[in-house]
Amino acid sequence: MVPPKKPRRTAERILEVTLALFNRFGEPNVSTTLISAELGISPGNLYYHYPAKDELINTLFGRYEAALAPILRAADEVENVEDAWLFIHMLFELVWDYRFLYRDLNDLLSKNRRLETHFQAVLTNKGRAMHAMLGGLARHGALRLSVEEAAPVATSMVVVVSYWLSFEYVRDPRHALETQNAARAMGRGAFHALALLQSHLDDASRAHLRQLSAAYLAD
Amino acid sequence: MVPPKKPRRTAERILEVTLALFNRFGEPNVSTTLISAELGISPGNLYYHYPAKDELINTLFGRYEAALAPILRAADEVENVEDAWLFIHMLFELVWDYRFLYRDLNDLLSKNRRLETHFQAVLTNKGRAMHAMLGGLARHGALRLSVEEAAPVATSMVVVVSYWLSFEYVRDPRHALETQNAARAMGRGAFHALALLQSHLDDASRAHLRQLSAAYLAD
Repeated sequence: MVPPKKPRRTAERILEVTLALFNRFGEPNVSTTLISAELGISPGNLYYHYPAKDELINTLFGRYEAALAPILRAADEVENVEDAWLFIHMLFELVWDYRFLYRDLNDLLSKNRRLETHFQAVLTNKGRAMHAMLGGLARHGALRLSVEEAAPVATSMVVVVSYWLSFEYVRDPRHALETQNAARAMGRGAFHALALLQSHLDDASRAHLRQLSAAYLAD
Repeated sequence: MVPPKKPRRTAERILEVTLALFNRFGEPNVSTTLISAELGISPGNLYYHYPAKDELINTLFGRYEAALAPILRAADEVENVEDAWLFIHMLFELVWDYRFLYRDLNDLLSKNRRLETHFQAVLTNKGRAMHAMLGGLARHGALRLSVEEAAPVATSMVVVVSYWLSFEYVRDPRHALETQNAARAMGRGAFHALALLQSHLDDASRAHLRQLSAAYLAD
């Protein structure tokens, strides 16, 4: 006999399936009816765990925030281009895991007060982490960049990291964000984010960046 | 006696009001019922001119494309930072005029076949124009940039120009895109797009860029 599922386990399954559906079809195109049908549970059971779609969105966003914090702290440890490459990659992988948030960001913000306020902090914290990364590269001699030059570069890196996957989607809506193409899309994004530094890197670091990104730029 | 409105005039008014509503509330939040109510015409009259919401979207997108073409051709005439600044500004003003397209771009593309195919061309043409601008600056001695370096810079400029207003919106959803703040938001965007070139500009051009953007960076 199969033991009955515990409520906590069901709540977790609901979140996993909701995240997969949001990422696949976009949050505006996924109803709670679709979620409960996909899970094979009644709408009432779904409602028992999450009385509104916004609570699903907020819980998933809370997980995104919780996963983002330790990644951003890793920016303080960046010493060379390889560390920077890894750091940007981790940021991209998290954007990928929660890509529904970025897919319809403006619409989500206009309807959800919690996202509206918290996403501002996400961008501020990302900008701060970019500055920390630039500082680490400079302290270890890989980068030369004045404070005046660093500010717009750090901001544009946040823009590229936040919107690169949307840009890939517009360039090739039917393929760019299929799972088998995701690694290349993120690799191109990481290269473009770090290429903003290329003229400021020392020769060895610039060559290293080219080498790290060569595999993603072949196509 | 007021003469009766000609059909062509009504069709034009419908487009103007639809564009204003799309820009203000976002296309997903504007129904044809709202459009006809705002115009003070019957849903049947609206339907007579535009039998589906997609036709309104496609007609407005056609105007965006038509307005974009001559701006992109102006990239061929860029000789110095001032020309580049003007060119990027014209691009931003057009994004602003049709900001509903960029606000929910991914969702629009997933539902509208014409946008899906044509927006790819928009990004390709923008990328080509950025290359033309970089070439013009280099030919006139304002910029030093190898072909290898130019490619990612041109692409990242397209990303910044396309997504800057969305980024401003996320940073300050209640104010950034109010009409009275638009000029500053676009000025900051133009600065960030051109700041990607800062280390490649000659000293006079870099100083000129700082001077052109000073008014927008004060806050």
